[in-house]
Amino acid sequence: MKHAIHGVHSAAATPVTGDGTPDLKLFGDHCRRLLEDGCHGIAMLGTTGEANSFGVRQRIDLVEAAIAGGTPANALLPGTSTPAVADTVELTRHAVQSGAKGVVMLPPYYYKGVSDEGLFRFYARVIEAVADDRLRIVLYHIPQVSQIPLSHALIGRLLEAFPGIVTGIKDSSGDMNNMRAMCETFPALGVLAGADPLMLPLLRLGGAGCITATSNVRADALRIVWDGWNDPAKTEQVEAAQARIDEWRTLSNKYVQLPTIKTMLAKRRGDMAWLNLMPPLVELPEAERNDIWAQMDRLGG
Amino acid sequence: MKHAIHGVHSAAATPVTGDGTPDLKLFGDHCRRLLEDGCHGIAMLGTTGEANSFGVRQRIDLVEAAIAGGTPANALLPGTSTPAVADTVELTRHAVQSGAKGVVMLPPYYYKGVSDEGLFRFYARVIEAVADDRLRIVLYHIPQVSQIPLSHALIGRLLEAFPGIVTGIKDSSGDMNNMRAMCETFPALGVLAGADPLMLPLLRLGGAGCITATSNVRADALRIVWDGWNDPAKTEQVEAAQARIDEWRTLSNKYVQLPTIKTMLAKRRGDMAWLNLMPPLVELPEAERNDIWAQMDRLGG
Repeated sequence: MKHAIHGVHSAAATPVTGDGTPDLKLFGDHCRRLLEDGCHGIAMLGTTGEANSFGVRQRIDLVEAAIAGGTPANALLPGTSTPAVADTVELTRHAVQSGAKGVVMLPPYYYKGVSDEGLFRFYARVIEAVADDRLRIVLYHIPQVSQIPLSHALIGRLLEAFPGIVTGIKDSSGDMNNMRAMCETFPALGVLAGADPLMLPLLRLGGAGCITATSNVRADALRIVWDGWNDPAKTEQVEAAQARIDEWRTLSNKYVQLPTIKTMLAKRRGDMAWLNLMPPLVELPEAERNDIWAQMDRLGG
Repeated sequence: MKHAIHGVHSAAATPVTGDGTPDLKLFGDHCRRLLEDGCHGIAMLGTTGEANSFGVRQRIDLVEAAIAGGTPANALLPGTSTPAVADTVELTRHAVQSGAKGVVMLPPYYYKGVSDEGLFRFYARVIEAVADDRLRIVLYHIPQVSQIPLSHALIGRLLEAFPGIVTGIKDSSGDMNNMRAMCETFPALGVLAGADPLMLPLLRLGGAGCITATSNVRADALRIVWDGWNDPAKTEQVEAAQARIDEWRTLSNKYVQLPTIKTMLAKRRGDMAWLNLMPPLVELPEAERNDIWAQMDRLGG
């Protein structure tokens, strides 16, 4: 694979205790099991991982907990952005020094309607302050949440200024045309699908893999797609796996997505601690939870 | 005045060095001069103060720099929210223990479309973790930036759960109807105008004052409005002062507002260090800067 960061990555959910602190032991176990389920890497502390709801120290602790739980550091892709350069540098430096495969970086998301020049400076200052050749950055395009789209002009400028460091982008916009255009325009950029149904279509366009939420419970099927998509003998198997992923993805979007993913994990892992969320997210009402669990049985667990 | 937090507050801008760290000495001087200009308090580290572009440690350092620069701690109203409960607790606890008059708290602003229950939990967890009767909170309603409006149902619930702690709201929406409704519905809540032109109209409705950006350069006029608005003999003087504020506010909105405020401060204080901004904001182009300076001369400095 030509891209430094490629394969099936889980946007791992982060378990929390009832009093709202990270459940480090359970998280370490979860990351290791995601690798056993078929993931190549763990894109921890993304939107699904409630990264922005944890403090800087908690985020550092979670990276260390993943490693302590048995996940090799070079399988980790932690989200390290905050709206502030200083804290982003601290988190990014820690990830690099821990041996992470790379980091996923949101743009600063407080001010809206900001310029490409301002966004470029944010990334440039972090890269220059971390000052480590091992740094590998996956940009994070999720405009429906961040409200800060990453333009192709910005991406091109970052690739030119920091070749080998800016290596990929996670596109969670769900916009296949944007992913196609990035694959064509930026051959050096590994495009990772942020939405499960786009995994197979993106691979066929030259994409580098995925970072998705459904992989918390269905990594096995994503791995089948990854391993077989380019083998004509496996087309039927691969398309069946993608269809299975899509069913689970549809279920995860039936109610509010993040609490639903955690509701699924509670059943899958048999641990009700998974039901807890960090503010401002809240758990599903009981009726929705019971419905999700019934639907999981219907889909085969 | 019946409200714990009332009067003219400056949404103080934060000077930064060329390498993007807070200029602590210049900030301490600025806060002290804002009091000399007529402010009752310094609402530092808000949207105008680029709070979210600074790390947790830098924000703590800035509170300490304001005090070291000669501003009494009980004139400070720092913004202490981040999207994470843990870092927000750290910043809020530091402000209270430093003797601040209160804190201004944004809701967590990463996830969009969240529930009142989730927002309530965010504030409740911070209040319960800080666990200090001296805590005074001004809620911060700025939906055009945060994308997270504070509903009246949420405000009412917070007032009921934390009487004497949740004491005010800064409304930067510019929506006079919302401010009027809050003054009528919540007599215990001190409503502070976030937009300068609404200072006088809001005081006439029973509001508690303002936290505004234009006060960085025009606090004198805001103080005239505050001191005289309820005195029929001063109506003409007060309305002239409000009109003067409005002229400056209009000028500050001619280009991108925050860089414009800093451009004004560079001229006013005679220190070009004020031109620097934190990413993702950038300085005004030279032609706009020169125009702002010429317009300041026209308005009388």
